[in-house]
Amino acid sequence: MAEYQIKELLSDGNEKQIYSTQDPDKVIVRYKDIATAYGKIKRAVFKGKGEVNNKISAILFNCLSEHGIKSHFIEINSENEQLCHKVELIPLEVVAHNRYAGSLARHLGIEEGVHCANPIVELRYDSDDMGKLLINNDIAIALGLATREEVNFMHETTLKANEALNALFTKAGISLVDFKFDFGRTSNGEVLICGEISPDKSRLWDIETGKRLDKDRFRHDLGNILEGYNEILSRLEKAIQ
Amino acid sequence: MAEYQIKELLSDGNEKQIYSTQDPDKVIVRYKDIATAYGKIKRAVFKGKGEVNNKISAILFNCLSEHGIKSHFIEINSENEQLCHKVELIPLEVVAHNRYAGSLARHLGIEEGVHCANPIVELRYDSDDMGKLLINNDIAIALGLATREEVNFMHETTLKANEALNALFTKAGISLVDFKFDFGRTSNGEVLICGEISPDKSRLWDIETGKRLDKDRFRHDLGNILEGYNEILSRLEKAIQ
Repeated sequence: MAEYQIKELLSDGNEKQIYSTQDPDKVIVRYKDIATAYGKIKRAVFKGKGEVNNKISAILFNCLSEHGIKSHFIEINSENEQLCHKVELIPLEVVAHNRYAGSLARHLGIEEGVHCANPIVELRYDSDDMGKLLINNDIAIALGLATREEVNFMHETTLKANEALNALFTKAGISLVDFKFDFGRTSNGEVLICGEISPDKSRLWDIETGKRLDKDRFRHDLGNILEGYNEILSRLEKAIQ
Repeated sequence: MAEYQIKELLSDGNEKQIYSTQDPDKVIVRYKDIATAYGKIKRAVFKGKGEVNNKISAILFNCLSEHGIKSHFIEINSENEQLCHKVELIPLEVVAHNRYAGSLARHLGIEEGVHCANPIVELRYDSDDMGKLLINNDIAIALGLATREEVNFMHETTLKANEALNALFTKAGISLVDFKFDFGRTSNGEVLICGEISPDKSRLWDIETGKRLDKDRFRHDLGNILEGYNEILSRLEKAIQ
């Protein structure tokens, strides 16, 4: 451990900081204890959230890797840090839905919790002026955000990742309602999943009771978020044994 | 002419009526003189609009046919009527954009008139409760509106149609900013372009001056819409000579 030293702060996001290392192609991603919602209007510190999200995300990136799906994740670097491949972020949020919930359910006027007949992959463009916008492949390409090959690859990879994650979460007694992650380009131009896969960026419900174990606990004041996050982690740890 | 007789009124839309004929696979489409905008809040009668739209739409469907792109159009039946193949409508509006304008420009915060780097095809779902919603292929399939094969075919066909129509409009000195049409399934399950291609359903600007020749004249009170529509018709008639 600690083979890679933290150098410069490259970016400071809501949930994570990214630092350069002595290797120009590798970065340290540090998971923060802060939770935000509604475009940062709601914000709170949950001591230990960074650590549990770091562990959950590592388990899920490893699950993808075992299914031949590449991400930026290399290894855990410390309690709240991961060593990752450095990527140039593609400015699109990629969201996969197995059930209608949140903004998609509201957009379509469908009740939260209804299963989608097939998994839905959505592209959202985080525009500075207009907030997060639902767009499609043609728009992403026209705006110069990604090439046709990249959006096709992202769509296909997200569906594969959804299948792999679904299998693991089902084993853990958790319904993977939806999740989002990013993609980035390495210095060689390879496109990798990046960001995080964690209860901050997904909806995870108890498969029997429908109890929310994810950040909706914070959004809707449903109780201690760390309790939910720790339950996810311990169930995943058991499922991969 | 008048080989096919009008039987029953099958549907009465904003701009068109559809009637059955003695042939169960053929319908008469009658173009109306009514113009509507903003979800029918704005409404007016323009005597002769049905006739000019019937002629424009026939020229444009014939243009598609010459490029091997099938539509429901068979032939002109009277001044304001077309004989068409009967189709079951796929409840998706398919919109092609060559420049940003209208709701797409507003959605993305891009100035009206900017050229798209590549043509953009959008799917909109006309939901009863929520109005017209931008959706993507996965959502259309999950909602059971069309199959994966059909949405792929619709995307590809719309891009081909855009290319063919663009060439004709350019020859007529008109910039094809955007247009929308529908698709439907024949009794054999074949998917055809249907609806209409007319200044009621497209943005058509003079290529030199940018003068609006389409329904935006009505939406934004820019002057007599029939003048614009007749100019489009006479330029297209010249272009196909």
